[in-house]
Amino acid sequence: MENIIHQEEDVKKFKDLIMYVDVCMFTTLDDNYKLHSRPMSTAQVDGEGNAWFFTNEFSEKINEISRDNAVNLIYSDPAKNIYVNVKGTCTMIIDRKKMEELWTPVLKAWFPDGLDDPKLCLVKVVTEDAYFWNNKASKMTAYFNMLAAIEKGEKYEEGESGKLQLS
Amino acid sequence: MENIIHQEEDVKKFKDLIMYVDVCMFTTLDDNYKLHSRPMSTAQVDGEGNAWFFTNEFSEKINEISRDNAVNLIYSDPAKNIYVNVKGTCTMIIDRKKMEELWTPVLKAWFPDGLDDPKLCLVKVVTEDAYFWNNKASKMTAYFNMLAAIEKGEKYEEGESGKLQLS
Repeated sequence: MENIIHQEEDVKKFKDLIMYVDVCMFTTLDDNYKLHSRPMSTAQVDGEGNAWFFTNEFSEKINEISRDNAVNLIYSDPAKNIYVNVKGTCTMIIDRKKMEELWTPVLKAWFPDGLDDPKLCLVKVVTEDAYFWNNKASKMTAYFNMLAAIEKGEKYEEGESGKLQLS
Repeated sequence: MENIIHQEEDVKKFKDLIMYVDVCMFTTLDDNYKLHSRPMSTAQVDGEGNAWFFTNEFSEKINEISRDNAVNLIYSDPAKNIYVNVKGTCTMIIDRKKMEELWTPVLKAWFPDGLDDPKLCLVKVVTEDAYFWNNKASKMTAYFNMLAAIEKGEKYEEGESGKLQLS
């Protein structure tokens, strides 16, 4: 029971961090174990902690996914000091109903034909492992907090980081 | 000559983008080709386009570097729509003079003993390949710019992206 509560809290935290940063560097490995990253906007984090994206079915990314479905999603927001590294496996899904559920007009900036675009599809990333760093404060603030802690003889709390238990 | 000018401009652009974002997700591959990423603050981009970092000589990252010196640096700032993916090779360097040159008091937040810390060392990443995306506008702005362009019958400029020629 305690485990389920922990898991639910972690999925919520994961969702909050991910959707706050929004755009990740979606990272795949090619045949020669070279990394390929490209920015992608997150359409949704569902109740199980899976991340969903819209993409173009025929893009290079999809070719790489079909060879090896291991991916890393890197969410990074230096201004807010939020960093999340997500390991997962992904699949391409063509599901009209789910697409309608996740579609927002802002996506027209990338897919001008909208839901009528025959190349439009969804990528679902099942998260296996998520590690986050959230310092809550900027580098300078962290520095001054540390100095203040030293002056008061207190232990400096560096911020929060850890593995999220998503399943 | 034109090539050199192009290269100098690209190194300057690379430096500007990297130092603006500052913190990257420093990504290494372990023995099983699993990716490991952790946030790291960039100490310097030098005149040749190499990126320098301070680190703890005995950290896990250094172990991974010593097995396979290929790394990826992922700089990502969703608020400013700047994304840079850097492929490179890295080496650990213990160079007292260079450390003094790159040291700033803010680093005390991570290395309280400063330059006297015997575990302190430098990591130099020689960049082999850098690809950037810089949309200059937020997602919402991009969307409205696109709509405005359509209304005026103009081609919508999505932003700037491309490979940087650093060497």
